[in-house]
Amino acid sequence: MGAGVIGLTTAFALVQRGHSVTIFDPFPGRGASFVAAGMIAPMTEASHGEDSLIALSLEAARRWPAHAESIESQSSYRVGLNRAGTLLVALDANDRAEVRSMLPLYETLGLSATWHAGGSVREIEPLLAAGVRGGIEAPDDIQVDNRRLLSSLADVLTRAGVSIVRERVVAVLSNGTRVTGVATTSQRHVASTVILCTGYDLAGIEGIPVHDEIVMRPVKGQILRLFQGDPRLRLRYSVRAIVAGSSIYLVPRSSGKVVVGATVEEQGVSYSTTAGAAYSLLRDAINVVPAIAEAEIEGFEVGLRPATRDNEPVIGASSLEGLSYALGGYRHGVLLSPVVADCIVELVELGAVPEIAWPFSPERFRVHHG
Amino acid sequence: MGAGVIGLTTAFALVQRGHSVTIFDPFPGRGASFVAAGMIAPMTEASHGEDSLIALSLEAARRWPAHAESIESQSSYRVGLNRAGTLLVALDANDRAEVRSMLPLYETLGLSATWHAGGSVREIEPLLAAGVRGGIEAPDDIQVDNRRLLSSLADVLTRAGVSIVRERVVAVLSNGTRVTGVATTSQRHVASTVILCTGYDLAGIEGIPVHDEIVMRPVKGQILRLFQGDPRLRLRYSVRAIVAGSSIYLVPRSSGKVVVGATVEEQGVSYSTTAGAAYSLLRDAINVVPAIAEAEIEGFEVGLRPATRDNEPVIGASSLEGLSYALGGYRHGVLLSPVVADCIVELVELGAVPEIAWPFSPERFRVHHG
Repeated sequence: MGAGVIGLTTAFALVQRGHSVTIFDPFPGRGASFVAAGMIAPMTEASHGEDSLIALSLEAARRWPAHAESIESQSSYRVGLNRAGTLLVALDANDRAEVRSMLPLYETLGLSATWHAGGSVREIEPLLAAGVRGGIEAPDDIQVDNRRLLSSLADVLTRAGVSIVRERVVAVLSNGTRVTGVATTSQRHVASTVILCTGYDLAGIEGIPVHDEIVMRPVKGQILRLFQGDPRLRLRYSVRAIVAGSSIYLVPRSSGKVVVGATVEEQGVSYSTTAGAAYSLLRDAINVVPAIAEAEIEGFEVGLRPATRDNEPVIGASSLEGLSYALGGYRHGVLLSPVVADCIVELVELGAVPEIAWPFSPERFRVHHG
Repeated sequence: MGAGVIGLTTAFALVQRGHSVTIFDPFPGRGASFVAAGMIAPMTEASHGEDSLIALSLEAARRWPAHAESIESQSSYRVGLNRAGTLLVALDANDRAEVRSMLPLYETLGLSATWHAGGSVREIEPLLAAGVRGGIEAPDDIQVDNRRLLSSLADVLTRAGVSIVRERVVAVLSNGTRVTGVATTSQRHVASTVILCTGYDLAGIEGIPVHDEIVMRPVKGQILRLFQGDPRLRLRYSVRAIVAGSSIYLVPRSSGKVVVGATVEEQGVSYSTTAGAAYSLLRDAINVVPAIAEAEIEGFEVGLRPATRDNEPVIGASSLEGLSYALGGYRHGVLLSPVVADCIVELVELGAVPEIAWPFSPERFRVHHG
């Protein structure tokens, strides 16, 4: 259930192992994954105190190059993996202190992170503003073109004979002890295994065990899509920046497109972009990379990212036999997708997820009755 | 030729007088008039040294209420005339001096213009920023919903049996001494009178007298369309502001929509909105009316406004008998439309435009030989 990046990648991994898969999604590939920036950036996404998530992210990133090759070997599309690396830069003195404070964590994790002072960081990325006060080069934080990725996955799955049914599942069916399939408003579909990859919206889906207490919420992310026509004004690196305490990222594609987003988060189900959010994004982006002012606006877009109550993913078996969860990709869905998919394959085939996924067990939310 | 606001209004005026009219335009009602803000603001649009244009604008504004009624009496649509008035406000001390410097001109013209100091202007428009340093109230500078206007005109014309042919005219036909009709790539159409209301793009139209030297150019205007959902955050007045020397306008519709534009102008034929232009618009708009930050972005749009070489309209007979010009509405097309249409009716019926249009004669560009 669900044809976002997690659902499609899980289907892909299952099909590789010879399983028969059917995917249900009213709008395949058009949810939060479609609006993402596609960063495969375990280092610059890492936060203090999120050890398990960092470990999962690093493992996912390690798998990405082979994963991308595996998809591309079976598709006529390219996934657009770009290994140009990321710069994490700072504008004012406080921002600089914040960026530098990440260095010990990166060192502990054994990651390649090089500090460049102001002038030196502009040598490797000349489009950075004169006001940039140094930054960290993260050569292993790369990116994939999330939209090409979704198209490639859909292409491979279709070639492999997987049906992507454009309907919403309204019920997970069971015989009381284990899953027997799913139902949409127009059909029933028999299945021995059901994997929930729906994103934030579980409303109106019958049959999910209530005492699993899987509560999802949408976290709105606003993204600005630009096109830089002049090749001389195109960024070499993905740039993340701390600007007066808030965080922004600019991810350039080889086509000249640039995705700009912020880590500011809003609650609520609304697809509208406010003037204030657009203003902040544009201001910070132009502040960090002045040439962005010359880029054409292709659009503002909103993604409603699926978050659990503790913001970490849920990967594992539900309390109903045959029903599994692969939910809560949140800001990290594209990055995590290959490792989540592999965990689900192991769950389906061996009955348990590997150790790396244990911290993300649905067990942590489950209500136990006396 | 041309179904922008000038072409449609001229057709409307001609039909009222019993003339038979056919309109040619590949994209009726979708040019610069569609992207306009719809200000009927002869006062706050007035510039020193443009006496003839000011006179024409004031005459047009006087005709607007009856004109709007006349259209609405024959249409099932409303044109959305809003008589709420305009405030011309200033942010810093220099801006304040610039705004105040307009008062003697307004007085000379006998227009109603009241200066309000900072606190007082926020009493009549509480959504203005605390930093606004006073402004001029212009109760007679009103607005029309340009999109409703275009729909209403098309509706009235269609009801009156006027054909709007969705083809581009590629040739004005003549027998050597006078007009005989027009040709598109698929048909010829016989007409005793042809009126050129095409906007900036005259390229590839055969048969326009070369020595009339009618040279049009597109002047790009970028507009931001917003929606303010919260009725408490909706502007009462149209607001024009001078912000650090540059000029911006915010025009609220009764529906909650707000059109924001700047008088910054760019040359060239490009429909793209740059990040820098969007940023400036948002920054200045939020600076003047902070509640704009809460409004939803509906879109950025670009209009290519038709300007002559001296930026003033061309209204009058060409050197080919039966062919007339109603071109160069530029920033003022919606405002000027009723008076331009009446001038063309007089030209068609009496052979000459009224005195008010004399300064806009095509004669000023004509190359005289011998």
